[in-house]
Amino acid sequence: MTLDDLPIRDDLRGRTPYGAPQIDVPVRLNTNENPHGPSAALVADLAEAVRRGAGELNRYPDRDATALREDLAAYLGHGLTAERVWAANGSNEVLQQILQAFGGPGRTALGFEPSYSMHPIIATGASTEWIAGAREEDFGIDPDKAVAAIEEHRPDLVFLTSPNNPTGTALDPAVIARIVAAAPGMVVVDEAYFEFARTGTPSALTLLPDHPRLIVTRTMSKAFAMAGTRLGYLAAHPAVIEALLLVRLPYHLSTLTQAAARVALAHRAELLGTVDELRAERDATVEWLRAKGLTVADSDANFVLFGVFGDRRAVWEGLLERGVLIREVGPPGWLRVSIGTAEEMAAFRAALEGIL
Amino acid sequence: MTLDDLPIRDDLRGRTPYGAPQIDVPVRLNTNENPHGPSAALVADLAEAVRRGAGELNRYPDRDATALREDLAAYLGHGLTAERVWAANGSNEVLQQILQAFGGPGRTALGFEPSYSMHPIIATGASTEWIAGAREEDFGIDPDKAVAAIEEHRPDLVFLTSPNNPTGTALDPAVIARIVAAAPGMVVVDEAYFEFARTGTPSALTLLPDHPRLIVTRTMSKAFAMAGTRLGYLAAHPAVIEALLLVRLPYHLSTLTQAAARVALAHRAELLGTVDELRAERDATVEWLRAKGLTVADSDANFVLFGVFGDRRAVWEGLLERGVLIREVGPPGWLRVSIGTAEEMAAFRAALEGIL
Repeated sequence: MTLDDLPIRDDLRGRTPYGAPQIDVPVRLNTNENPHGPSAALVADLAEAVRRGAGELNRYPDRDATALREDLAAYLGHGLTAERVWAANGSNEVLQQILQAFGGPGRTALGFEPSYSMHPIIATGASTEWIAGAREEDFGIDPDKAVAAIEEHRPDLVFLTSPNNPTGTALDPAVIARIVAAAPGMVVVDEAYFEFARTGTPSALTLLPDHPRLIVTRTMSKAFAMAGTRLGYLAAHPAVIEALLLVRLPYHLSTLTQAAARVALAHRAELLGTVDELRAERDATVEWLRAKGLTVADSDANFVLFGVFGDRRAVWEGLLERGVLIREVGPPGWLRVSIGTAEEMAAFRAALEGIL
Repeated sequence: MTLDDLPIRDDLRGRTPYGAPQIDVPVRLNTNENPHGPSAALVADLAEAVRRGAGELNRYPDRDATALREDLAAYLGHGLTAERVWAANGSNEVLQQILQAFGGPGRTALGFEPSYSMHPIIATGASTEWIAGAREEDFGIDPDKAVAAIEEHRPDLVFLTSPNNPTGTALDPAVIARIVAAAPGMVVVDEAYFEFARTGTPSALTLLPDHPRLIVTRTMSKAFAMAGTRLGYLAAHPAVIEALLLVRLPYHLSTLTQAAARVALAHRAELLGTVDELRAERDATVEWLRAKGLTVADSDANFVLFGVFGDRRAVWEGLLERGVLIREVGPPGWLRVSIGTAEEMAAFRAALEGIL
């Protein structure tokens, strides 16, 4: 028997699993991880938190993760409280819960591409029709065209990504506000990379008080350097959190995940302390790539999209042969490199120079 | 703004979140947890595993959890290998992934009630129509009637629970085999409580080699006493695992969860060592309740369903007033008590005696 013989959903037929190749190479710059592991002090606190909590591991976790949500609200600021914050296993699960609550059969979600490719995949998984809107040539969103698309399609959900993956483009909150005002349903702003935005870039969190149908999602996988912990979260009106309680799987967030995320939040000065260095590396990378005559998208994230190559696969493979794994993603001809340490970026530059 | 003002899915309107009340009382016998916390040695190993793995927490986990699936296959036996095993955050997520892959709009799932109430909730969450079949008066499944229901409805999925929650009833594998032979689609046997079954009860795993559309789900939350870790898993044909890869959220299982589950599996002699004691307590509880003139369902699980009360809510509240929390679940008039330690069961008996 093969997969084709099984009665899987018709819209899954012929698909292949999502995911960047996990290849063991010296320099991994392909999944926008933070290159800095936690300090020995953080690891010790984490082990101690596990030791303290483990005696109760025979019991289910706090189903509503209240203490963690309080800590997340305190981190986000903007007057947020636990009742306006929700958390799940990575922002992918947060997004899935949003789609389960507000999408579903007969409903639609609109996004502006190129953007995070999991948005349409999670929408499809939740039986929500995906409508692909377009970004401009500079990867920004034209508010007039966005409003026109919303008026044409009347989507139940609108997805915005800021800073956008894989382009790095941050949106002006005024553009988001116009889209929220025009949208008949929920608007999700995916801010997974927000902490990397250039100084002065406002978060969509500033819009929450005036827009009860706005949801802002975040993650601890990127700036917080906690990809292995799988902790995504969101801020929204308390009624939105109530809606998510109707679809979340009971006890979805383990005792260990809740404890680890709280330890990471307590150590946020250390973890977010890497952000400035990564922003500087990013800006230097953009500059270096442009000096090489390449086209590079402005980036407010911890990655850079560059091109345009006639045969991007050949460039990707050439880098891999030299021990540097980046990501073949984005519009045809473009490649995305995550920002690593200074040493890793030097290795990337040397490898790319060998190819160009 | 309230929940009613939000554009949630129509079939969620008016619902309340699932979940037993999490009340802090001296004796918690309401969610079928194992009353025994892990030993100091296990906790130390767990903290050490976290310490070892935490240095890489900035990296995403192994997306396919290969080492954990190898350990789970070794535990299950029956010649299983990692390619026939899959794991997720609790068996709820395992079941959700099954429904996302094989259910969906226009598809149906058939179960035999009373049974685990999350089955219809997760089916609905995955936009799969739930068809409620019935169990017999002794809470068993009549194979002729089950086959007739399958032929009438032609469900895309059939859910069987053995031992059944909340009744404790184990199914004869011959009944399961007849149902699998009749089912046009997938058959899921939820064996969350299998380790508590009376000696000699065969697992549905014995049927896997002959039935490529059969899926057997398990959990580490019950006999393994790891409810806080949230680790559910399943065994099935490798093509079924391939189908699940199409719907699983990437990196769904954290580094910490994978590590903790592996430590628990390494300590399985200790963890499963509590099962015999709990089975003895269960059998004694059944006997005691029957001696009190109550009706009690035969149980192969770590809980007992008993009744029949004219006002079960009054009995539930009376127990709660006496510091004993059990579960108001099952057919009208019945109550379910989880099996705790000898001391907890003595407290339960004393409290119930005060009411009867």
